[in-house]
Parts: sequence; structure tokens; C-alpha cells
Amino acid sequence: MRVRLVVEYDGSDFAGWQVQPGRRTVQGTLEAAIARLVKSERRIVVAGAGRTDAGVHAEGMVCAFDPPRVLPLTAFVHGLNALLPEDLAVRSAELAPPDFDPRRDARGKTYRYRLWNHPVRSPLRARRCWHVRGPLDLAAMREAAAHLRGTHDFSAFRAQGCEAKTTVRTLRAVEVRGSGPELEIEVEGTAFLRFMVRSIAGTLVDVGQGRIDPARIPEILASGDRAQAGRTAPAHGLTLVAVYYGDRTKAHG
Amino acid sequence: MRVRLVVEYDGSDFAGWQVQPGRRTVQGTLEAAIARLVKSERRIVVAGAGRTDAGVHAEGMVCAFDPPRVLPLTAFVHGLNALLPEDLAVRSAELAPPDFDPRRDARGKTYRYRLWNHPVRSPLRARRCWHVRGPLDLAAMREAAAHLRGTHDFSAFRAQGCEAKTTVRTLRAVEVRGSGPELEIEVEGTAFLRFMVRSIAGTLVDVGQGRIDPARIPEILASGDRAQAGRTAPAHGLTLVAVYYGDRTKAHG
Repeated sequence: MRVRLVVEYDGSDFAGWQVQPGRRTVQGTLEAAIARLVKSERRIVVAGAGRTDAGVHAEGMVCAFDPPRVLPLTAFVHGLNALLPEDLAVRSAELAPPDFDPRRDARGKTYRYRLWNHPVRSPLRARRCWHVRGPLDLAAMREAAAHLRGTHDFSAFRAQGCEAKTTVRTLRAVEVRGSGPELEIEVEGTAFLRFMVRSIAGTLVDVGQGRIDPARIPEILASGDRAQAGRTAPAHGLTLVAVYYGDRTKAHG
Repeated sequence: MRVRLVVEYDGSDFAGWQVQPGRRTVQGTLEAAIARLVKSERRIVVAGAGRTDAGVHAEGMVCAFDPPRVLPLTAFVHGLNALLPEDLAVRSAELAPPDFDPRRDARGKTYRYRLWNHPVRSPLRARRCWHVRGPLDLAAMREAAAHLRGTHDFSAFRAQGCEAKTTVRTLRAVEVRGSGPELEIEVEGTAFLRFMVRSIAGTLVDVGQGRIDPARIPEILASGDRAQAGRTAPAHGLTLVAVYYGDRTKAHG
């Protein structure tokens, strides 16, 4: 039996997705709750569709595991939710093929980056939005976003230590939404490099603040040089919204 | 010099508005930051438009104080925000008449009560919404809300220990908004008894779940008996949205 879960979490108090000794991680917390639910002494490995960094949230992370005994699928929703802490929940559980690999089988993901663009910070949005004080030129940001859409080498938009062998990725959508103080940058792509969405969000804000000319995006992409692109936006503004699989259905609770 | 502030806070980690020895309160935190800003050794009393209970949030709480020395108004926004913790901020500051009393002078307030009406809890909404699992009959809730509008004795909708002498209040609006899993109950009134909005929200949910017939609301009001009305909804779903003054302008950042 292989079970596929869609999980939601508030990443504020997690040291990211991946298990790390002595740290509170999403994967570790899920694995512990599953072991308790199925009364297993051994670790039950939960494979994720990717790793979210410390502070990053998820509405629709997908993961999978093989329970050592058969339980009804609802037990993996309501049973786990009774055991999980308030900032982590299972939205849905379904049977998956025995060889289902949430990472390898993923055809795409949607991320949303939230901004609070106002002179004064907002306590009620502090955990979810990056506070950007000055005015933003949304037209310039949208022009830059259009240059990022499509298939490019995104070497200039990844973490310093990122060791991915191939750096060509396809973004189906890069959209700057909103007009008031609440803005969102939505990015949909086939796959992502480490810090790629946060580098895109930081660069779009730099464009919006006039520090980078939107017409320079093609040459920044061509340079492959991280130093040419803009800032890496902070983790707490980022949410993994959904992971897509073969049928192009959103795995979404 | 009397200064009127509009403040926003995430109430999750505060023991309510009012100063209490040894507890982290909104009023206490504000008073300490103001004293630091103006370099005062003495307590600077901040008078609020009302007291919010532990866990209740505010987008537009209004308060006032007399700074012992004159500073530009922007110092009371940006200077205080630099000193205040992440879950509390000043949205705006303006000069008020010397006798301005945020509580006595208030002509009305708007509160919003948020519900997450879904079989599965939502970690990203856990701090702001009351999780109500079963289906809700929104038409019945709206019928009950209509009975609550207007001027009534709200004795049946207040805290057990509430000692207000008069219990007649006027609600200008009681609205149940939304249709999907995200629902809001918005209540606007001249003044409120302790736990009044939470008793209204809890009763409307009891109506939505079929435990109270909406046609019984007039007799519950007439009974003046707290035991006749429904549950008191939990604090974390409630937000004080705005306080209105003489000019009917929202005091809203």
C-alpha cells in the first residue's frame, strides 16, 4: 500500500521540510505522527515532492509513504490531524501506485510569493508577506515577469550553493497580481532550482523599485551570474500552492 | 498634546488589551514602547477604545495618550514601529483634542468573526479562523442574523461575569458573508457587552448546525438568559476591524 498525502503547513516554526537531527522539520513531524498512528517502532520514510526551506509555507505539498499496515484512507487524514501540531495538517489522502515518487513524477508546481507594499508593516500579515515599504512600479515588474516566462537557463536565479546539474527550466507563468498594498507574484513551472522563486521575487521587487531595468532581464538570464540578478526575497513570503502530476490535476486537498 | 493612534495586532500571543501585572498585553507593550520613545521614566497611560480579550486581533484599535514632550506625529508611527514587536504596529497617528476619550467618544465599532468551515483544519488559517467542521445552513444563519439587527436587550449574549449596568445595544449590521469554506460574520454596532460578538458568532454557528432554530432568536433575546443562546465562539476568530467617531469616519490606518 502506497499513500499519497497533500499537506498544508505554516512554515514559520519549522526548520524547513527535510529531516535534520535535533530540528523541528515538516518531514520529521509527519514521519513521527505516522509512526504513532500505525504503531511502528521503525522510521517510516515520507518522500516529498521537493524540499521547502525554513520559513516557507505550503498549501499543497505532496508526499508519499508505505504504511506497514493497511488502514482506511480517512485514518491518514483525520487520524493524523489529531496527532499533528496546529501548524501542520493533512488535507487529503489517496492510494498511489506502488512506484509513485512525488518528486520524480511531478510535472510542475505553483508557488505564490506575497508582498505587503505599504509604508507601515502589518502584524496580521507578518508571517505570510514580505513587507516592502516604498512604491512599486507594477508595469515594470510585469514587463520583467514576461521576460522570465518560457524556457531559460536560470543559473542567475538560484542559491549560491545550488548543485543542480542542469539549470534550464521552463516557467509556464510568472504573474504579478493585485494593485493595492496586497500583491502576489505567482510562478508556475516544471521544476525549480534552489531559491529560484525567491530570487525571482527579489529581482521583481528590485525592478519595481527602479534598481533594475526590466529590459535587462534577458541579459541577466544570459549572464548566468547570480550577482547580476536582484535580492533573494525572504522565506516567509513564499507558499508552495500546488504540485501537478501526469494528469495535470492539481494535487490539492 | 494628545495623540490618537490606530493600532493593529495579532492577538495570539497577547493576554488581551488591558495591562495586567506579569502578563504580555497590548496596552502594556504600547506603553513601554512609548515611554522608551519619549525617554520617560514614568508610565504613560494609553487609553483604549475598549478592551479586547486574550487572543482577539485588531486591524483598527484606537487609543490615545499625552506624550510628555512634543514629537512630530510620524515619530509615533515609524519610531514606535521600530520599537514594537512584530505582532503589534501603529498604523497611523494624529493630533486629537485634549479631552479626546477613545472609549467614551466612540460612536460605533465593526468586528469581524472568521470561520474555516471545512472537514479538515487549515494550519495557515489556524491563528485567525475558528475551525467548524460540519456543513452550515447559511440561509438559517442569515435569518438569525436579521433578528439580531436593531436595538435589543443583549443580556442573553454576554459573558457570565459581565457587569454592564445597561444591556440594551444597537446593532446596525449583522452579516454572514461568503459561501465557500471561508466565512465571515461582520457585526457593526454602537457599543458591545463583554463576549457579545463571540456569543453572537457561536449562536449563529449553532443555528447553522441546526441546534437552534433561527425563529427562536427573538425569544432568546427576550429571555435575557445566557443559557438560552448558543456557545461563545473562541477568541482567535475575532478581529476588531474599526472604531468610528463623531464624524462617522473610520479610524482606520
